[in-house]
Amino acid sequence: MDSAEFRRRGKEMVDFVADYLEGIEGRQVYPDVEPGYLRPLIPTTAPEEPDMFEDIISDVEKIIMPGVTHWHSPFFFAYFPSANSYPALLADILCGAIGCIGFSWAASPACTELETVMMDWLGKMLKLPEAFLAGQVGEGGGVIQGSASEATLVALLAARTKVTRRLQAASPGLTQGAIMEKLVAYSSDQVVATLGTTSCCSFDNLLEVGPICNKEDMWLHIDAAYAGSSFICPEFRHLLNGVEFADSFNFNPHKWLLVNFDCSAMWVKKRTDLIGAFKLDPLYLKHNHQDSGTLHWQLPLGRRFRSLKMWFVFRMYGVKGLQAYIRKHVRLAHEFERLVQQDPRFEICTEVTLGLVCFRLKGSNRLNEELLERINSAKKIHLVPCHLRDKFVLRFAICARTVESAHVQLAWKHVAQLATSLLATPRD
Amino acid sequence: MDSAEFRRRGKEMVDFVADYLEGIEGRQVYPDVEPGYLRPLIPTTAPEEPDMFEDIISDVEKIIMPGVTHWHSPFFFAYFPSANSYPALLADILCGAIGCIGFSWAASPACTELETVMMDWLGKMLKLPEAFLAGQVGEGGGVIQGSASEATLVALLAARTKVTRRLQAASPGLTQGAIMEKLVAYSSDQVVATLGTTSCCSFDNLLEVGPICNKEDMWLHIDAAYAGSSFICPEFRHLLNGVEFADSFNFNPHKWLLVNFDCSAMWVKKRTDLIGAFKLDPLYLKHNHQDSGTLHWQLPLGRRFRSLKMWFVFRMYGVKGLQAYIRKHVRLAHEFERLVQQDPRFEICTEVTLGLVCFRLKGSNRLNEELLERINSAKKIHLVPCHLRDKFVLRFAICARTVESAHVQLAWKHVAQLATSLLATPRD
Repeated sequence: MDSAEFRRRGKEMVDFVADYLEGIEGRQVYPDVEPGYLRPLIPTTAPEEPDMFEDIISDVEKIIMPGVTHWHSPFFFAYFPSANSYPALLADILCGAIGCIGFSWAASPACTELETVMMDWLGKMLKLPEAFLAGQVGEGGGVIQGSASEATLVALLAARTKVTRRLQAASPGLTQGAIMEKLVAYSSDQVVATLGTTSCCSFDNLLEVGPICNKEDMWLHIDAAYAGSSFICPEFRHLLNGVEFADSFNFNPHKWLLVNFDCSAMWVKKRTDLIGAFKLDPLYLKHNHQDSGTLHWQLPLGRRFRSLKMWFVFRMYGVKGLQAYIRKHVRLAHEFERLVQQDPRFEICTEVTLGLVCFRLKGSNRLNEELLERINSAKKIHLVPCHLRDKFVLRFAICARTVESAHVQLAWKHVAQLATSLLATPRD
Repeated sequence: MDSAEFRRRGKEMVDFVADYLEGIEGRQVYPDVEPGYLRPLIPTTAPEEPDMFEDIISDVEKIIMPGVTHWHSPFFFAYFPSANSYPALLADILCGAIGCIGFSWAASPACTELETVMMDWLGKMLKLPEAFLAGQVGEGGGVIQGSASEATLVALLAARTKVTRRLQAASPGLTQGAIMEKLVAYSSDQVVATLGTTSCCSFDNLLEVGPICNKEDMWLHIDAAYAGSSFICPEFRHLLNGVEFADSFNFNPHKWLLVNFDCSAMWVKKRTDLIGAFKLDPLYLKHNHQDSGTLHWQLPLGRRFRSLKMWFVFRMYGVKGLQAYIRKHVRLAHEFERLVQQDPRFEICTEVTLGLVCFRLKGSNRLNEELLERINSAKKIHLVPCHLRDKFVLRFAICARTVESAHVQLAWKHVAQLATSLLATPRD
């Protein structure tokens, strides 16, 4: 494929993508396939000679699409949102074409520098304390990780390195094993200090936890993977109060801030803590500006030019556009909450703070499991459950960029009808 | 931005990308900027109101491009190649649009299933032992990781879990710390068992290492990050002999197999070893086909639909096209090798096996450091160095998809001229 053919096929692909996203509401949100469906549909080995592009793109519709769970359907209310916006798609095309691997400043200065500035932009949108920003000369700073899991692991490794050094300095004779036995990590059953848990979007109280961590000289990492995006709205910013006690903070713009996966934003108060945990300096990575950039802030050596996505999205939406987007989702969640509240057969299980509604039929777990089973078998909408203490609960998460009141109303009507037919079924 | 505007802007972006890649040879391969160049060029905060797309795309040329190291310039001979092909760019547009997060089979069955089958296709291209393939019912299988570093860490965690369980079964009273002190990982100064080291593309002897690991019941992980792609050619396949002794094997199609970053291919002989190291089952990830797919084979929970890139690339090049691509690079490396050999001032430092030539001026390290400094300051080509034992060595890696004999000839003429002027300079 030469560049002339790429121009033609690329434009066809842009139309294919636009068609897909325009028409996604008409597709069944959850697929009909069974495990193993795909293998018999394609050859057992790669072709020796090139296939035609026409055949490949037609196979996308024939073979791939029947097995896709359509995360961007306005009838998808499962898990949490996964961001998908046109500006991010455009930026990602550019990112692929530049195709630099930003493992050091020299490997592509723009990649490192735009990331640092975008993380400052985003930090300011969240009103993070100044200490977390890189600014011109700050000690803190942000870095894009692939996922909140990676950010948590990075924080854990940085904390371990810091404490290990402290212990070794205090008692030089300690063996590695003895040090390991002294290290303690505290977490709840929803992991580290969390703002907006996956199960029910609950919030740890940072104003209680934070001062204790500081007093005991413990590393405090805060994970706000989903909820973090909402903190760009002044009315939700109070949920982040106490972040000033943290050593590191992380949330995923790839969830709710319209920056396509992957883009997990992590800030630290002391860049040197991260660098200390990862330092590795083969000669082929050395250059004249060794201390510039974000080398060794992460597990993989390679990094895509992910900040382009942030730059395009922040500029094409503007802060007001992003705030409006968050507010629309929260408004739709409250709309669903009110619909549930008006039906005496149902109960709301936790306070609705952002875009997630946890609800259930008043009755047994078995009853609610059956309701969810009927919902997901009908495949008009898609939900996933959670356990809250001993209760089996249904999660209704506002997810798609294009979801509107009409979809929420339809979804509720559908759930209520399935509940009616379920409750009319003779029970054991 | 609505879908109509995306159609227009997306096509403009496709042309922008095609223009960039067509004209990349005319751009200076390494940028002129100094650290901190970018921050003063853009606002200190995100805009409140949306910017115009025209302004953003014009800023790409004004602000980003001057700071880009052009990895896909045919005058880029640094590090190792980073893959960039039109079919992969097309697939990545589709991947972004589908935007599913494939953390379980149910989260998007096609994402998991295509990955499993593509890893079998690729494994067969490499003639990996059957034990590493998933097939219909095999115990092995492949998974796409983000980078070789992640694959190594995953292998290490799997190995640790396996040995820890064995030790605990043998001596139930052992504390965690005592177990930690018993665990040993062996590596050389180039890390784990490696086929094609970064410094000089040297190869560990698997036929020696492998049987010892098997006899001692040690986990053997093999990293062939760069060299692995070449094993699709029968004439290079012997370099992989001994892989049958390994527990896990990894290489990066995103280096040399035209699949854009990130795509690191990892296989294991026993899938259950990986699953055991990562198991975590919140209710929201449970579904009716829990054992299908690649959940828990990696560090991050989320995964992009990366196998689409493999599918597009394998089909649009065909195995023969991919082999021809590898062979072209190896041929160009030998062409450069011969040029070096014909100049008595220079020496070749290691055997040229694939696409990397390690060479230096006969003389001091200081002299070679100065030569490299002059090469990289002139910015006509870009190289990085390595240390081989005590010697400072220049690495000439065939990298770009579009590099041809003419570029290699020009590069050599340039190096030879710089050497001439360097050697004419009075020395201290």
